[in-house]
Amino acid sequence: MADRLRIAVLGASGYTGADLVRLALTHPRIEITALAANAKAGQTMAQIWPHFAAYPSLPTLVKADAIDLSDIDAVFGCLPHAASAELLSTITDTRIIDLSADFRLKDAATYADWYGGAHPAPSLLSEAVYGLTEFARDALPAARIVACPGCYPTAVLLALLPLVAAHAISAERITVNALSGVSGAGRSLKEANLFPEVAEAVHPYGIGRHRHMPEMEQELSLRAGRDVTISFTPHLIPMNRGELVTCIVETQHGPDYLRELLADAYAEEPFVHLLPEGVAPATRMVRGSNHAVVSVFADRVPGRAIVIAAIDNLVKGSSGQAIQNFNLMFGLPETMGLEQAPIFP
Amino acid sequence: MADRLRIAVLGASGYTGADLVRLALTHPRIEITALAANAKAGQTMAQIWPHFAAYPSLPTLVKADAIDLSDIDAVFGCLPHAASAELLSTITDTRIIDLSADFRLKDAATYADWYGGAHPAPSLLSEAVYGLTEFARDALPAARIVACPGCYPTAVLLALLPLVAAHAISAERITVNALSGVSGAGRSLKEANLFPEVAEAVHPYGIGRHRHMPEMEQELSLRAGRDVTISFTPHLIPMNRGELVTCIVETQHGPDYLRELLADAYAEEPFVHLLPEGVAPATRMVRGSNHAVVSVFADRVPGRAIVIAAIDNLVKGSSGQAIQNFNLMFGLPETMGLEQAPIFP
Amino acid sequence: MADRLRIAVLGASGYTGADLVRLALTHPRIEITALAANAKAGQTMAQIWPHFAAYPSLPTLVKADAIDLSDIDAVFGCLPHAASAELLSTITDTRIIDLSADFRLKDAATYADWYGGAHPAPSLLSEAVYGLTEFARDALPAARIVACPGCYPTAVLLALLPLVAAHAISAERITVNALSGVSGAGRSLKEANLFPEVAEAVHPYGIGRHRHMPEMEQELSLRAGRDVTISFTPHLIPMNRGELVTCIVETQHGPDYLRELLADAYAEEPFVHLLPEGVAPATRMVRGSNHAVVSVFADRVPGRAIVIAAIDNLVKGSSGQAIQNFNLMFGLPETMGLEQAPIFP
Amino acid sequence: MADRLRIAVLGASGYTGADLVRLALTHPRIEITALAANAKAGQTMAQIWPHFAAYPSLPTLVKADAIDLSDIDAVFGCLPHAASAELLSTITDTRIIDLSADFRLKDAATYADWYGGAHPAPSLLSEAVYGLTEFARDALPAARIVACPGCYPTAVLLALLPLVAAHAISAERITVNALSGVSGAGRSLKEANLFPEVAEAVHPYGIGRHRHMPEMEQELSLRAGRDVTISFTPHLIPMNRGELVTCIVETQHGPDYLRELLADAYAEEPFVHLLPEGVAPATRMVRGSNHAVVSVFADRVPGRAIVIAAIDNLVKGSSGQAIQNFNLMFGLPETMGLEQAPIFP
Repeated sequence: MADRLRIAVLGASGYTGADLVRLALTHPRIEITALAANAKAGQTMAQIWPHFAAYPSLPTLVKADAIDLSDIDAVFGCLPHAASAELLSTITDTRIIDLSADFRLKDAATYADWYGGAHPAPSLLSEAVYGLTEFARDALPAARIVACPGCYPTAVLLALLPLVAAHAISAERITVNALSGVSGAGRSLKEANLFPEVAEAVHPYGIGRHRHMPEMEQELSLRAGRDVTISFTPHLIPMNRGELVTCIVETQHGPDYLRELLADAYAEEPFVHLLPEGVAPATRMVRGSNHAVVSVFADRVPGRAIVIAAIDNLVKGSSGQAIQNFNLMFGLPETMGLEQAPIFP
Repeated sequence: MADRLRIAVLGASGYTGADLVRLALTHPRIEITALAANAKAGQTMAQIWPHFAAYPSLPTLVKADAIDLSDIDAVFGCLPHAASAELLSTITDTRIIDLSADFRLKDAATYADWYGGAHPAPSLLSEAVYGLTEFARDALPAARIVACPGCYPTAVLLALLPLVAAHAISAERITVNALSGVSGAGRSLKEANLFPEVAEAVHPYGIGRHRHMPEMEQELSLRAGRDVTISFTPHLIPMNRGELVTCIVETQHGPDYLRELLADAYAEEPFVHLLPEGVAPATRMVRGSNHAVVSVFADRVPGRAIVIAAIDNLVKGSSGQAIQNFNLMFGLPETMGLEQAPIFP
Repeated sequence: MADRLRIAVLGASGYTGADLVRLALTHPRIEITALAANAKAGQTMAQIWPHFAAYPSLPTLVKADAIDLSDIDAVFGCLPHAASAELLSTITDTRIIDLSADFRLKDAATYADWYGGAHPAPSLLSEAVYGLTEFARDALPAARIVACPGCYPTAVLLALLPLVAAHAISAERITVNALSGVSGAGRSLKEANLFPEVAEAVHPYGIGRHRHMPEMEQELSLRAGRDVTISFTPHLIPMNRGELVTCIVETQHGPDYLRELLADAYAEEPFVHLLPEGVAPATRMVRGSNHAVVSVFADRVPGRAIVIAAIDNLVKGSSGQAIQNFNLMFGLPETMGLEQAPIFP
Repeated sequence: MADRLRIAVLGASGYTGADLVRLALTHPRIEITALAANAKAGQTMAQIWPHFAAYPSLPTLVKADAIDLSDIDAVFGCLPHAASAELLSTITDTRIIDLSADFRLKDAATYADWYGGAHPAPSLLSEAVYGLTEFARDALPAARIVACPGCYPTAVLLALLPLVAAHAISAERITVNALSGVSGAGRSLKEANLFPEVAEAVHPYGIGRHRHMPEMEQELSLRAGRDVTISFTPHLIPMNRGELVTCIVETQHGPDYLRELLADAYAEEPFVHLLPEGVAPATRMVRGSNHAVVSVFADRVPGRAIVIAAIDNLVKGSSGQAIQNFNLMFGLPETMGLEQAPIFP
């Protein structure tokens, strides 16, 4: 496997880590060299993940500090926030794709406000590239640290960035309603995530204070050249994968103009698709794939439009986008390893 | 069963009809006298409904015109719109609780706009009482025709009526995001409602043009004394029962004031409950029951608040509220037959 | 509430405890006097159970030893095995309905083999009545301790007891395949019970060694007057409630004879229903109710028949049957508080 | 695409047709040349399938007779039985991989018994190769017509063929309990397949008379060199994909010997995996992939063992195995286009 890039995945015992391994397994230029998960070091992937039962040759899990980084071309960080920056900040020579929240915010004070503690490595914040791939292509080839966006920000930014950049919608009156599958809550042991608590049910959470808010506002404001605020309410729904955001925006232009902006922005994109007029985004359009779908609808209320986007939270919202960024960092074709069509039903 | 009121259910082959029968079965003052479903006349309820397997003594389904109405105290209409008004308008002496959309709108022209055809019995529109029970108690005892609200309007109106009545929120900038279980789509044969199309998936529908909009605006405007408009986007989620509405409102008052208004409105209500501060409504709080839960949250964006409500779409959103109205029409205790606690998990 | 019997529920923080409270809430002769859950003492039921959000007046949870038993007519034990017997054996004057496994097996050695430790109170084993209600009616009125059957045994015994009693099926060649909803796994924090691990998936568990086996064989053997052995394989399927057992039996009689035996056994039963020929039991027939449905089918293979039963694991398989037993213990009508029809969809 | 084999898919509007297209899309040696679905001719795949929203360049659906077969290297038949043989029997020069039941049974009379009518093209039955790939490798390269096994037979035969071939289990006493996701019921419009009818529920179907029985017995008997009979009871469970079969067998050998037989049979197989001792097959191990997992367990009852297998019914149970057969028919690597790892959660 001489022509393969050697990767390490830190945090391979979580859903994003596992989905990264799933995708990396069939990536023609990746060799999965090391897998770390401190609490489960010594176990095989097949022991902790049912879907790797047929892959006994995957590396056994080790503790993160047991990995010889001199042997690694890229580190994927799939750790919880804070733990991620603490560990990754000790890596100085290897390129890093981080899937945690730790390198997304540019401002250490904002981080401290929202994540409940001082940033473990604030000096790295300016170096990190915010890896919403479609808007980061110029910076990725030279990046050493790439911060993959959160799942909600990925969907919301794909829906809205071209619109705020063109000043086509009001920056003050954006209302986003978001729906996520339960894998977004991670594999940690909480009563609230047991099957019987979630199945046949729906509830909102993080109302008015979800941690993905500052990240969305940071990127929208940056692109708009002015402060953008959003109301954001996420809900947990009984499905494994998938995320759908419904954005009510105010606009002096009609929905057709917003459509044009999105059409222009995504005409050449391999993974972001503006749906035909009248077709509503649905998570089943993208399940298991790196695709995102967006669309625009007129609202009955004059002066408003509805912009909707759907992604798979674990793929385009996390591990798939990480691979997409990796490809660009290492000069590979952007779609390599991500060609799988969505799985339905 | 001399002390029982004799009821007929028209449309007993649909989900709302079946849930009405489920509740009526244990109502101490109801005798289920006749069940109609034209396409399935001649079959038993146990043949068309699995959950009535243990109830072989339920009346066999007949065609609606085979029912001797002189024998019936109350007719429950569980038919599709238009068909409902056509049939019910031929009934002149029996009291009617209609669960269809046909008698909800006061204006026949609005009905024609939204329901795609002239109203079959426009002269009855003024007579019908809009049966959101908590706000219709005065009119119910004397009502001959009660129009039960749609499921979405029930949830939205319970969340917002006390607020618009007090002019505490902007009438122009209400954004409602709604989530419904699949039973809301009815038992009709559509590819889109097959299990594999809906499970592990979510999508919006009726975007910017759902038929429950004019009904919500009619009632909100009536109560506000001025025109109220709302943006309303419903989504179908993979669960059987339940409905949750998330309303982003603009207000010059804080969320505490909105809470107080709801607390005052619902302090004595047996079925509508303001949750403690910080507790988010969830459909699992009300599953299978006639309860509704509401709550108010501050938004990060100044001048906004988030009002959320959850109901079981088939019970408080349909058949349960119909029984609740029936109770008041006939001078029975309001909660009779509706005492079941929510079922969880 | 002078005419009400005062009950205490020990273990009100588990699914069976909660479902017992749900049913007891509308039981006309029960007053819920005390609720215990050591780990959650001090919290309200509404704080730990979403579906009790509308019931703020339920007793606050206390530690079990804080309950004044002199004030209690009946104790419902909803604790894990071993813990249950340890606690309940200290109660000497109050009547006990135990939902744990601790008083089901008559033989302390068998208990030790299967439950991994000596029985905490072996002297009580002979006193306890095995409370499969339909077959325990004579013993219940005088019973001080009633051991409610496990959920799987309830379904299997209802399907097979009349057949083994009549020696109509082979005692050596019974194969039972069982399917259970996830609530059967309890509310404990295990990775395996997280929503994403269970949804859209199925797997067998406890293969060849599930703890409900000795209980089933004990009761079948007792009724048959000879040793009965069964092969039993349970599977966890992605639903909240419900249990279905498919029993392949060998018989020298045809399926019609087996049907007759079941028809005779259950002709007068309020909760156990032999379905019409050709109608297959389904969990949706009984969801949320105390009903059980059974049926018999011919197999293509000569000399075999297929007997199938379905129950709601939390109701007839647990809390509902506990109430049914309670009713008979205290001379109340057997169906009191259990009249709810199944909920569908 | 000169080096690509041109395929036509007949019946692209069903779940198996769609999953074939999903897999073919990323197969490096396939060009999807024509897609037929008579009732939906003229529509695009994106119009009838949400997950092809991002694939607007797929061929538009045509009627089957509009396809120029001279241009096609292989035809995949994804039509209902009878319709399949009728249409495919008119194709004389093109190689055919049929996913229907029409060419699986060798005996036209058995077909007529089970499928309710004379076989449309009995002369082709002897020509067709039964394409359980792992046991058909010799015949596939020269085959003109390959009949892909049914989903249940695929799982059952992978579990049992090596055991009956070695005469290690009783041929008369095999009991199979099977569980399938709802996609197995197809995309046809039946009330019974609506989401609310299936979700949160389970039921058996085709009890004692499922059409996959004769197919299983044919292949088992052929391999055993004597008549094999099985009791087979399938159940529909609330998930999209996946199939699990639990086989209770009688054996004079211990489970270890059965394990050895399976280990020998599948040691070199890329898609069939014997799990480590004690690990139970689960559908989540194979979801979305062409893998099958099998395992053997001791039963408590002496002389019995439990053999369990899991597959994805749409992949190894249908479209994936069709591609696997296609690969061998055309001299391609067996795993080509089937490398995707299972998707979890």
